Amino acid sequence: MKSYAVIGTGAVGGYYGSKLAQHGHTVHFLARSDYSFIREKGLRVDSPLGDFHLAKVSVFSSSREMPQADVLLIALKTTGNGRLKEMISPMVGRNTAILILQNGLGIEEELQASFPDNPVLGGMCFICSRKGGPGHVIHQDYGRITIGSLKKEDAPMVEEIASDMNGSEIPADIVKDLPEARWRKLLWNIPYNGLCVQLDCNTDRIMKTPSSREIIQRLMEEVVAGAAACGITIEEEAVAKMMAFTDKMTPYEPSMKLDYDNNRPMELEYIYRRPLEEAAGKGYEMRSVWMLYKHLLFIEESQKAE
Amino acid sequence: MKSYAVIGTGAVGGYYGSKLAQHGHTVHFLARSDYSFIREKGLRVDSPLGDFHLAKVSVFSSSREMPQADVLLIALKTTGNGRLKEMISPMVGRNTAILILQNGLGIEEELQASFPDNPVLGGMCFICSRKGGPGHVIHQDYGRITIGSLKKEDAPMVEEIASDMNGSEIPADIVKDLPEARWRKLLWNIPYNGLCVQLDCNTDRIMKTPSSREIIQRLMEEVVAGAAACGITIEEEAVAKMMAFTDKMTPYEPSMKLDYDNNRPMELEYIYRRPLEEAAGKGYEMRSVWMLYKHLLFIEESQKAE
Repeated sequence: MKSYAVIGTGAVGGYYGSKLAQHGHTVHFLARSDYSFIREKGLRVDSPLGDFHLAKVSVFSSSREMPQADVLLIALKTTGNGRLKEMISPMVGRNTAILILQNGLGIEEELQASFPDNPVLGGMCFICSRKGGPGHVIHQDYGRITIGSLKKEDAPMVEEIASDMNGSEIPADIVKDLPEARWRKLLWNIPYNGLCVQLDCNTDRIMKTPSSREIIQRLMEEVVAGAAACGITIEEEAVAKMMAFTDKMTPYEPSMKLDYDNNRPMELEYIYRRPLEEAAGKGYEMRSVWMLYKHLLFIEESQKAE
Repeated sequence: MKSYAVIGTGAVGGYYGSKLAQHGHTVHFLARSDYSFIREKGLRVDSPLGDFHLAKVSVFSSSREMPQADVLLIALKTTGNGRLKEMISPMVGRNTAILILQNGLGIEEELQASFPDNPVLGGMCFICSRKGGPGHVIHQDYGRITIGSLKKEDAPMVEEIASDMNGSEIPADIVKDLPEARWRKLLWNIPYNGLCVQLDCNTDRIMKTPSSREIIQRLMEEVVAGAAACGITIEEEAVAKMMAFTDKMTPYEPSMKLDYDNNRPMELEYIYRRPLEEAAGKGYEMRSVWMLYKHLLFIEESQKAE
């Protein structure tokens, strides 16, 4: 059984870390605004799997004070990734694995370059969850996590972590091709995150309005074509499947919509700019995605100006 | 000197009709909501060329009651074009010329099909004007009109009307190729009309924000490519010129933005759907324009649902 350190105790990190702790793992949590609350009152999780409360939590307000752990779960917003290397450096020992639970393209590659000898892994979280308040995670639906590594030699580490997850009521799959898994995740994130902000609505309204439904489909088709340009095959039927999946989802506001509504920066860099750049570098312009991205930038520029 | 009938006494029809009347032409006006006001108090125009007031105006609330005229100026919103043929039929005699002052693609062709023997002309109005209230037009800037015909045999009619305009302080040019002139007008209308609605701002903010400036440029480049697919050459430099022109413009809210703000239907059919369809029919998809169009449809569908 490995020990874990959760960097970013939000809706995602708070949920997965709490499940691991609930099932007996040593888990240290790094929290910012919630630090004092969690130290005093612990962590609470509302979940269809059963609500629970961790009364005594190993929580820290600075990475410098945290004990080392076998696995770092990176669950901060990517908008702070400029400071990520510096932040986690004190916690990265010779064999420490770094598992990125963030969304977007190119994050693992950046961290692998900073820590070339460590296992750097990517975890795609298929979860609907949100913060209900300080130290309070509301798990709404799903929760599966798929994990892969950049380097083949890290496959055993991926297996061990997946095993820990599966033993903690977190359904975990192993993916062989991490970039492919990242693009498959983008197939949902690129259309829905941005469009919910642009149109100021949830997934349900998007799917039920003919024009936005057409936009979603076109964006997805472009992501498939963008992936293809990067040498990654996503079968065409994935588009219809992903739309059918979203049709059945409980009406949902993606994290970018919540960030926007709460005047927090949006995760545009890794979800939009990088994939656009990567596909364009291989000769394919995702022109509709570009339009959405530039509109989101406009919104961000307007927010800053206010 | 020809007589005129203005169908739609708004910011455009009210201005041009009043200028013609001010310079001695017989002008009949068709008005809806402003009818009683204009009949009692006349038409007032505020303009950099000099404010003026027409105290006694030949105004009608129904086309059936209007006297025939040599030239019909069609200045209604295109959103009502489904009823246009029926509305103007009583006024179209054997030689009546029909001059379309509306924006968008394919309108002249539709009317020419309805009235195959009449001169059907298109006028591109480069004017910033708006309604200030009932019977009150505020002319802000510009005013040039360029006129062309679908059929070559109507060239003399175009010349006569241009001459009437030029004699009424309306700078008027003649264009040889009406479809080309329509596409050139779309080079401004497609980007700015829709984007001012989508981003909820005026031309000034669009031009001063880096991301929306990029969007405008891409939309214009697509319109140039769309026109090219339809066999119409717009030189590449037209994009930079049009942007430089808009940079210098007084901050402006295009008519579509005013329609949207006042909960009126937007002119999506002829400014967006037709050009998209025409270019796609010739093998070129204006993908960014399509994204903008679908977003505008979403807005319209949302307005209706409210």
